[in-house]
Amino acid sequence: MPSYHLVSRKYRKEDTVIRLATTEVGGGSTVIIAGPCAVEDRELMLQLAPLLKNMGVDVLRGGAFKPRTSPYSFQGLGEEGLQILNEAGRAAGLPVVTELMDARDLDIVYRYTDIIQIGSRNMQNFTLLREVGQTDKPVLLKRGLSATIEEWLLAAEYILAEGNQQVILCERGIRTFETYTRNTLDIGALAAAKHLSHLPVIADPSHATGRRELVAPAAKAAVAAGADGLIIEVHPKPKEAKSDGSQSLLPEELAVLIKEVKALASNIKK
Amino acid sequence: MPSYHLVSRKYRKEDTVIRLATTEVGGGSTVIIAGPCAVEDRELMLQLAPLLKNMGVDVLRGGAFKPRTSPYSFQGLGEEGLQILNEAGRAAGLPVVTELMDARDLDIVYRYTDIIQIGSRNMQNFTLLREVGQTDKPVLLKRGLSATIEEWLLAAEYILAEGNQQVILCERGIRTFETYTRNTLDIGALAAAKHLSHLPVIADPSHATGRRELVAPAAKAAVAAGADGLIIEVHPKPKEAKSDGSQSLLPEELAVLIKEVKALASNIKK
Amino acid sequence: MPSYHLVSRKYRKEDTVIRLATTEVGGGSTVIIAGPCAVEDRELMLQLAPLLKNMGVDVLRGGAFKPRTSPYSFQGLGEEGLQILNEAGRAAGLPVVTELMDARDLDIVYRYTDIIQIGSRNMQNFTLLREVGQTDKPVLLKRGLSATIEEWLLAAEYILAEGNQQVILCERGIRTFETYTRNTLDIGALAAAKHLSHLPVIADPSHATGRRELVAPAAKAAVAAGADGLIIEVHPKPKEAKSDGSQSLLPEELAVLIKEVKALASNIKK
Amino acid sequence: MPSYHLVSRKYRKEDTVIRLATTEVGGGSTVIIAGPCAVEDRELMLQLAPLLKNMGVDVLRGGAFKPRTSPYSFQGLGEEGLQILNEAGRAAGLPVVTELMDARDLDIVYRYTDIIQIGSRNMQNFTLLREVGQTDKPVLLKRGLSATIEEWLLAAEYILAEGNQQVILCERGIRTFETYTRNTLDIGALAAAKHLSHLPVIADPSHATGRRELVAPAAKAAVAAGADGLIIEVHPKPKEAKSDGSQSLLPEELAVLIKEVKALASNIKK
Repeated sequence: MPSYHLVSRKYRKEDTVIRLATTEVGGGSTVIIAGPCAVEDRELMLQLAPLLKNMGVDVLRGGAFKPRTSPYSFQGLGEEGLQILNEAGRAAGLPVVTELMDARDLDIVYRYTDIIQIGSRNMQNFTLLREVGQTDKPVLLKRGLSATIEEWLLAAEYILAEGNQQVILCERGIRTFETYTRNTLDIGALAAAKHLSHLPVIADPSHATGRRELVAPAAKAAVAAGADGLIIEVHPKPKEAKSDGSQSLLPEELAVLIKEVKALASNIKK
Repeated sequence: MPSYHLVSRKYRKEDTVIRLATTEVGGGSTVIIAGPCAVEDRELMLQLAPLLKNMGVDVLRGGAFKPRTSPYSFQGLGEEGLQILNEAGRAAGLPVVTELMDARDLDIVYRYTDIIQIGSRNMQNFTLLREVGQTDKPVLLKRGLSATIEEWLLAAEYILAEGNQQVILCERGIRTFETYTRNTLDIGALAAAKHLSHLPVIADPSHATGRRELVAPAAKAAVAAGADGLIIEVHPKPKEAKSDGSQSLLPEELAVLIKEVKALASNIKK
Repeated sequence: MPSYHLVSRKYRKEDTVIRLATTEVGGGSTVIIAGPCAVEDRELMLQLAPLLKNMGVDVLRGGAFKPRTSPYSFQGLGEEGLQILNEAGRAAGLPVVTELMDARDLDIVYRYTDIIQIGSRNMQNFTLLREVGQTDKPVLLKRGLSATIEEWLLAAEYILAEGNQQVILCERGIRTFETYTRNTLDIGALAAAKHLSHLPVIADPSHATGRRELVAPAAKAAVAAGADGLIIEVHPKPKEAKSDGSQSLLPEELAVLIKEVKALASNIKK
Repeated sequence: MPSYHLVSRKYRKEDTVIRLATTEVGGGSTVIIAGPCAVEDRELMLQLAPLLKNMGVDVLRGGAFKPRTSPYSFQGLGEEGLQILNEAGRAAGLPVVTELMDARDLDIVYRYTDIIQIGSRNMQNFTLLREVGQTDKPVLLKRGLSATIEEWLLAAEYILAEGNQQVILCERGIRTFETYTRNTLDIGALAAAKHLSHLPVIADPSHATGRRELVAPAAKAAVAAGADGLIIEVHPKPKEAKSDGSQSLLPEELAVLIKEVKALASNIKK
């Protein structure tokens, strides 16, 4: 089988560094991406964004198009959500990331976001991979729920093969027999991806564990294993969140975690 | 969590029966869908289709858009493949099924095919599910590689909720720790789907096993467990197939299997 | 890695046939092993055994030593259970099978049983495998919850390497991400084991599905895939069973299933 | 289902601390257990032990009874191996740990070892759990390859229920679909076990990853997630090791890792 080439460390030895307006991903830094699972409310986003900026968050996240298992669940605000996210990010001086689910939404998502996210369920949506590969925006590529490390790197290869070299890999937990945690954070895959590829690799401890009390240990584990950053769900009122409330940190919990993670990263990376 | 409703046996007691020009799916019959993994060659398809018709195949399959793990693998013939498939089916008197991967291809796929397939990797591509839900063509919905039975039924619910009631569920093997077989045919899920839903459920023993010698036992197992049909890969020269050769039956092997399956089905269903 | 040898079809082409007093396993027959999960009550066993004999059951099963996940669950009657099982089997003219969990119980289990079962959790208890390999009783070797096909055959190899050639392999479902069924019946592994080895292979649809309504379809699937027999849990009052009630058939349900399975087997094997 | 009780944090709030002659496990320390997979050679062990002691190893490990997938692989030196391990540990001032596989070996293993290990394949060997529960030696209980967190804690409950409160839990990777790594280190389970139980929890990055280059990142991840220690395979000549060479660190690699881990632990635990 022809395997990955452009994403390989054999092709490029040095870490790929992706430069955003106010921060960079890869090459020794530890980027913190945070925000609510879904953009639900303009006031909430406008209040939350500067709070996050102050505690050291580098990128604001929020979903406008929400892929949901059931057709009867909240599906996101769509373009209105994109506008709110963009407005909140601009006001706080934070670049933003949001998920693209349909190639036909590429123009509009492109306009409002700084990083385009490809979600787990679309990791092998090769059409979408090719489309974002033809843009000049960084892409955050989440590992599929049951994708092997090789399949994950090959999905990134689709993007690089189209010309876009700015891919951030994200390990977000795989599906296993264990049901206590929502997914199983695959620390070995994170370390392997760092070893095999020059692309930055971050972790999503929120989806990987699905439990608020496990987000901090999972986040620290990822950084200790060499992750280039974290993407974390935060919500001021988790019980009212329309999705993923049980795994969202409170802003004050996130502030503590960021301090611990920064201390840990400086210990690890020296 | 709101769960499935329209796909449930509680909503509709009797088996849904999907009528095609020359055959029907559900309600006691055992539909045989067969063809090569990918449409590669016009001559091959035109020769193969009447052969399949004569041995009792009900629907011709063939991929025009091939989702491949690597960007460097054969990606299918695209529209030309659709034309060839359509021509071969028409000539042999067989309805055809092919996979839709990109919502922007819906019109063209719609024009050339009798059943629209949603592949495993797109089982939770909710955009695609909604789009095919707004058509009047039957949809063959493959279970995702690591989708639970509930997620599979909820994916079908997306289609029914848009108005299209003609969904054929397809169990095609799940990803487990076992590597000897390509996937693990989940017979319990097939039986459970029949129990929980009124929709027809078929099995794909080719992808489920990935090994020619296991296709026949897996096919018989599925029918014995109550499957409404089978989708099987067949190729006159498996070694030359551009994809999935190792799991493709020879036409003469398929002819034997169809006889055995028909005998088995009449034993099971009486 | 040195792999299996004595269990391979390359070493021995013809099916191994294991002869018991009143029946045989392998070589074309379809053995039916049935009984309650645990031996709980003498009266119940003495009443149930002749009922089972009359409906075509070939071997009586029942656990005396019950491996339970929790130390606070019912742990089996021990030697008293063995005596009851033996008495019930003798009275009804049925050979019996029960599980050995501790090498120190080998003498006593040997005395009371016709087939020694090695359970899933002990599939790689190599001490136990060697011990039963030195006896002259047939061994029913259940596949481990997460054992590959190769590991399963290597576990059998441990027994054959000690001199005991009478091993019956039993596929009883593997652990996967799916939670609707208790385990996932691996039909491909069953067919592969038949292909790779000369040893008889049976299936346990009760543990594989964990749901009464799925036992019959799973049982038929196994026979259609070539299984040499079935081991099924039956209990006259499933709700009162001390273990596994939800997957136990009623005797009358088992009687219907046996008829269907026998008809199916004669269709499949001719 | 009756679940765990004695192992729960609800039963006992404070961390259990297990005291050995020269070190302790639990309560804030980070114990380092290291040694070769199997005891193969007296000279090697006598040379290696003081080297390990000098670099900060707290406990010496080595297998005398080796559970191997194939009956034709090296099976360990048995009692001779126990003697060598014991001699090497005594000479270097290191307590030792070795695996017990057969209840009939308990007396001899008890005599030579300071900690009794129950391996993954025996996590639900309830006989063995009860036996070690009746001793006064600390028990290192490895999580089964496909055991849920609850099953793991219930296995520990078997030991505590017999009176032995000195159990060290060990997360050593679970079996998933991923094949690049030998197993999948389950960091979420490690953190969950710390949260749910007062028992110390350590990690085995060697078996969890199966690859030398991933041992260090996995080890650090475990400590960052709150692990009370590590058990690591080390071998002066990995290519000549009779088992697990590809995952064994060189002594000099271990020395570096221990320094990094100690720095990390002091950062994490302050």
